[in-house]
Amino acid sequence: SKEELYLASVFVSDAQYNRNIYFDTSPQAVRLYLLYNHWLPQVLLYIFIILDLSLALFEEPAVIPLPSWATMLVELLCLLVFTLRLVHYARVIPQDKFWKDPKNICIIAIVALTLIDMIIYGALKASSYQAIRWTRVLRPLLLVNVTEGRQLRRAFRSIRNALPQIIYVFLLFLFSLLIFSLMALKLVGKRDLKTTGGAPYFSSYVDIIFDLYVLVTTANSPDVMMPAYNASSWFALFFIIYILINTYIFMSVFLAVVYNNYKKYLKEEIRQLVRAKRHKMVRAFAVLQERRKDTEEQVVSQANWNQLVRLVQPDIRNAHRELLWSVLDPQNQGCIGKVAFVQLADLLNIEVITLKSRPHPLRFIFPTLYLSVPSRLICRLVRHRTFVMVYDLIILVNAIFIGLDEDNPLIADSEWMFLSLYLLEILLKLYVFEPRAFFSRHNLWNWFDTIIVFSALIATVVNSAVKSFGLYGSHQILDIVLILRVLRLVRVVDSVQRFRTIINAMIRVGPAILTFGQLILVVYYIFAMVGMELFKGKIKYFGEGSDDPTKLFCGNVLLNGTSFAQLNYCKNNFNDILSSFILLVELTVVNQWHDILHLLCEEPLLSSGFTFVTHVSARIFFVVFHIIVVIIIINIFVAFVLEAFFMEY
Amino acid sequence: SKEELYLASVFVSDAQYNRNIYFDTSPQAVRLYLLYNHWLPQVLLYIFIILDLSLALFEEPAVIPLPSWATMLVELLCLLVFTLRLVHYARVIPQDKFWKDPKNICIIAIVALTLIDMIIYGALKASSYQAIRWTRVLRPLLLVNVTEGRQLRRAFRSIRNALPQIIYVFLLFLFSLLIFSLMALKLVGKRDLKTTGGAPYFSSYVDIIFDLYVLVTTANSPDVMMPAYNASSWFALFFIIYILINTYIFMSVFLAVVYNNYKKYLKEEIRQLVRAKRHKMVRAFAVLQERRKDTEEQVVSQANWNQLVRLVQPDIRNAHRELLWSVLDPQNQGCIGKVAFVQLADLLNIEVITLKSRPHPLRFIFPTLYLSVPSRLICRLVRHRTFVMVYDLIILVNAIFIGLDEDNPLIADSEWMFLSLYLLEILLKLYVFEPRAFFSRHNLWNWFDTIIVFSALIATVVNSAVKSFGLYGSHQILDIVLILRVLRLVRVVDSVQRFRTIINAMIRVGPAILTFGQLILVVYYIFAMVGMELFKGKIKYFGEGSDDPTKLFCGNVLLNGTSFAQLNYCKNNFNDILSSFILLVELTVVNQWHDILHLLCEEPLLSSGFTFVTHVSARIFFVVFHIIVVIIIINIFVAFVLEAFFMEY
Ligand code: NA
Repeated sequence: SKEELYLASVFVSDAQYNRNIYFDTSPQAVRLYLLYNHWLPQVLLYIFIILDLSLALFEEPAVIPLPSWATMLVELLCLLVFTLRLVHYARVIPQDKFWKDPKNICIIAIVALTLIDMIIYGALKASSYQAIRWTRVLRPLLLVNVTEGRQLRRAFRSIRNALPQIIYVFLLFLFSLLIFSLMALKLVGKRDLKTTGGAPYFSSYVDIIFDLYVLVTTANSPDVMMPAYNASSWFALFFIIYILINTYIFMSVFLAVVYNNYKKYLKEEIRQLVRAKRHKMVRAFAVLQERRKDTEEQVVSQANWNQLVRLVQPDIRNAHRELLWSVLDPQNQGCIGKVAFVQLADLLNIEVITLKSRPHPLRFIFPTLYLSVPSRLICRLVRHRTFVMVYDLIILVNAIFIGLDEDNPLIADSEWMFLSLYLLEILLKLYVFEPRAFFSRHNLWNWFDTIIVFSALIATVVNSAVKSFGLYGSHQILDIVLILRVLRLVRVVDSVQRFRTIINAMIRVGPAILTFGQLILVVYYIFAMVGMELFKGKIKYFGEGSDDPTKLFCGNVLLNGTSFAQLNYCKNNFNDILSSFILLVELTVVNQWHDILHLLCEEPLLSSGFTFVTHVSARIFFVVFHIIVVIIIINIFVAFVLEAFFMEY
Repeated sequence: SKEELYLASVFVSDAQYNRNIYFDTSPQAVRLYLLYNHWLPQVLLYIFIILDLSLALFEEPAVIPLPSWATMLVELLCLLVFTLRLVHYARVIPQDKFWKDPKNICIIAIVALTLIDMIIYGALKASSYQAIRWTRVLRPLLLVNVTEGRQLRRAFRSIRNALPQIIYVFLLFLFSLLIFSLMALKLVGKRDLKTTGGAPYFSSYVDIIFDLYVLVTTANSPDVMMPAYNASSWFALFFIIYILINTYIFMSVFLAVVYNNYKKYLKEEIRQLVRAKRHKMVRAFAVLQERRKDTEEQVVSQANWNQLVRLVQPDIRNAHRELLWSVLDPQNQGCIGKVAFVQLADLLNIEVITLKSRPHPLRFIFPTLYLSVPSRLICRLVRHRTFVMVYDLIILVNAIFIGLDEDNPLIADSEWMFLSLYLLEILLKLYVFEPRAFFSRHNLWNWFDTIIVFSALIATVVNSAVKSFGLYGSHQILDIVLILRVLRLVRVVDSVQRFRTIINAMIRVGPAILTFGQLILVVYYIFAMVGMELFKGKIKYFGEGSDDPTKLFCGNVLLNGTSFAQLNYCKNNFNDILSSFILLVELTVVNQWHDILHLLCEEPLLSSGFTFVTHVSARIFFVVFHIIVVIIIINIFVAFVLEAFFMEY
């Protein structure tokens, strides 16, 4: 029946796209479920999540300040959307499944807590008390917990499962750190050494632990060693052994353990995914099966199968569908058993590349012209190796011209020549090669070329227009022109086979980078929220033109004369979400982070009476950030790059 | 015959120890070859290599200055020893093999060049000209090229074979660096920005390339970004993308490529080693084989085999030898064929651990006492888990006491109590467990404990004696006491099973670290030699007590007011081999290395007329060091740690 076909098609497309939702199989629920999986509500949901996350741009401390009622109104709208989506989901799957799933509970909790927080905040603001929108920390968790965040959730689950192993190594590392710190205290502590700044050196156990922890990241090398080394050369040996064990061996061990465990659990997850896919296909088969008269086997007839495939993939071509059937039913029996049926989901995911070269459309439109002698000559020239070499040469000459001074009018005009040459190249290639093949999904370099050249053309024209109308030359447009001009040069690497192999392996890391980017967004967002509440407004940045008297020490007397102010780090602050993100990137790079941190530590935090928030807690904030981001997440990223290259060779 | 047995035994022991020398099989050559492999000349050779290398301590610029005739005399002696050893080797192997082996040519060249260098140096010195002992750079190559440096040579060979792959990635990385630098020049160069020091920022292409290269090592983050970031927040995006691609992706790709290729070639080398081993065993078999009467097979009789094994391993016990025979000849036929014979070399390498527990020697000496009720009670107590826990508790209490102020007499005296407790523990264990089992090669922790406690005992007694005689308390002895005291605490990790697994995996990296240590010694030595010639005496360090007026700027007016002098880096110099090595470690850690380097660059190098040696060449010195040490050697080290842990899990 039609409803059975619908149900089976839902199972198949769930299997095809690895959806893991145990929906209700009643006809209404199936219809609702189809709506739930429609691309429009999914895209809308993502838009509202991005909107919700980007509210941080407009809330105190804001990049673009908006009144809090406006942001709260938008947030209410977002919450409404999330709730509607969740209600939709609740009507799709059975009640008991819904309440057993932690991600639904999590979304409900986030929505409820946010509402409570907004009410409290509003009430406190109305009575002029200080208030904190603390549920902003929870926002990125929505990205994790919506049904579509499967990959991200899998990544978090793999991290959680890998944690016990990582923690054992971390404890051992901590033990090593404590032992070395104790040794440093005993050896150096009594000698009354001073740092360059005149402060006592290695005199308190807690400070030594922190300094040696920072040394693991190499951020304070060699400064942390110098006073001891100046006192006696033997102390250098202590630091060298420390760095060998803790920086080189332990950090490599972390990479090894993260790599191994994360991969192990990810593989386990993928194995489960394959099982679930099979299970769904079996259910689809069970819906459509009919008993074959001669052999008493359960089979699916070709007619039903055809209808099913048309439902699952409405845009499939008949030739393609028939090809699939002939793969599943090679003896042409007119029906397939369970084993063959189960393969359908995977077959649908395989992209069939038409290998036979299609003739160029111009050949149909202007056959005599396209097949004439000069036209054939052009085709042969463009297909020749020399063509590629000539253009590589042009790119090199272009590189030299870019390097030269662009104020010289001759060189500025040469840009038009290069642009037309590149444009000519693309047009020639389009004349010679079949356009659909030229722009197929596998020819990334053609896409790259075309986009870069056409963007450069548009930007250069706009830039010239702006200039020739005597308008103020916009920096932004000129910058874009310059970037595009340099990016064009990148194409030259495609000519070397070895480079292409390496770049292909790098591109294979792409999908991992996407998941990884979401992962880091979640972590950064949470740390940025906490950091902004703790440190906002402590450090101020005044622009170049400002003549504020406190400009030299970032608007904070406590910073007067510190290296932070001297190094012009004032813009590294937690004053808005963008600055916070850039600061967190700097902390991820792990250089000078102790300097950035030291400054924040010297501040009496939240000085308005919260004496329990001492500088130690600020250190904890940064050490926790380091452990989570550098030791765990960056190592996962490195593991993905390693894996991609281990596969290549 | 006896000579055949000798020859066969040499083949077998070469196979056993993986020696790959194609010696002459004439009886005299075999006798010479046996002498060549004797441990005494090998140890002597190593002593003379170490002596030769350590001459750098006494030569200008010296740690302990000696007249140059003295060091040259010692060096001549070393050269004589190397020559004798080489002559010995030449008489062992066939002439044509000798002259075809590049390592022999290399040694001859080093010796000859050193002699020439010494003559030139002597002549120039005698006529009061300036002279450089440039062949000192070649000294570490002796370590690589002596016959015994097989593992090191294999490591270098693997690096050489992996180089092509690494170079392709490096070229791509270089291309990326050039493109990003060009972009930075175009975007930032025209804005007339200034660094914190007031210097023009990102205005020259070469400077940008260097700055961005340093950024890859993260050493100048975030400083290099700040002027651009202060000008516009958008520039932060440029640097973030740069760091993502070049620091995170490319550096991981380097690790992956080094890991893959180095491992691949090392595996190939080991496969060749296995083939060579088999080949040698086959030759030994060919020497001893005799035709069996009944089956016409070639075999080796048990009598011959026994004599052979006694020659190869004179200290083998009869029981062990018979065990080996019964493994090779399970049907007890009295002779073995080729297949069984070939296994001998591997069988000899297997250590047979006597599993049956030997009774305690005290049981034989004082049977009634050792088997009495109190003695049995002691044995049961020591074997109980509580005994370990009690001592873990004691260690923790000890840790707290060490942390407390040792000037308190009560705490100073408690040290004696802890020492006696630890001593008691060892004595009790020796009373309960069989001493040879207790000190077997596998019980590393017992060795560790005993050595640490006994050293601590001796050092503490000496320290107290020195003190009680009213002598000046020597800092060195006290430092040793303190280190030993803290090291004792390390034992506590052995109680946790998980920690033991991790530590075992780390210990498995040990042999790799040894080869790796020699590798880095060779590279450091060469760079130290070159560095000392280029930079010696440019920076001076004056001790704490000095009141030299130039002390504040390291004795060099050019450094007045630089951050190098402000950070008190004066002791980071190339003034002697030890300082050079420590400086090279700091450069390996890759932090502030641009600072250290910048200073050396600002100096007009070798200003006495060699104008072609500009500051650019100093940059090249350091970049080459970075590429070789950090990108290649450190990555090999990390690869070994990763491998050890991939095997564990
Ligand atoms: Na660093």
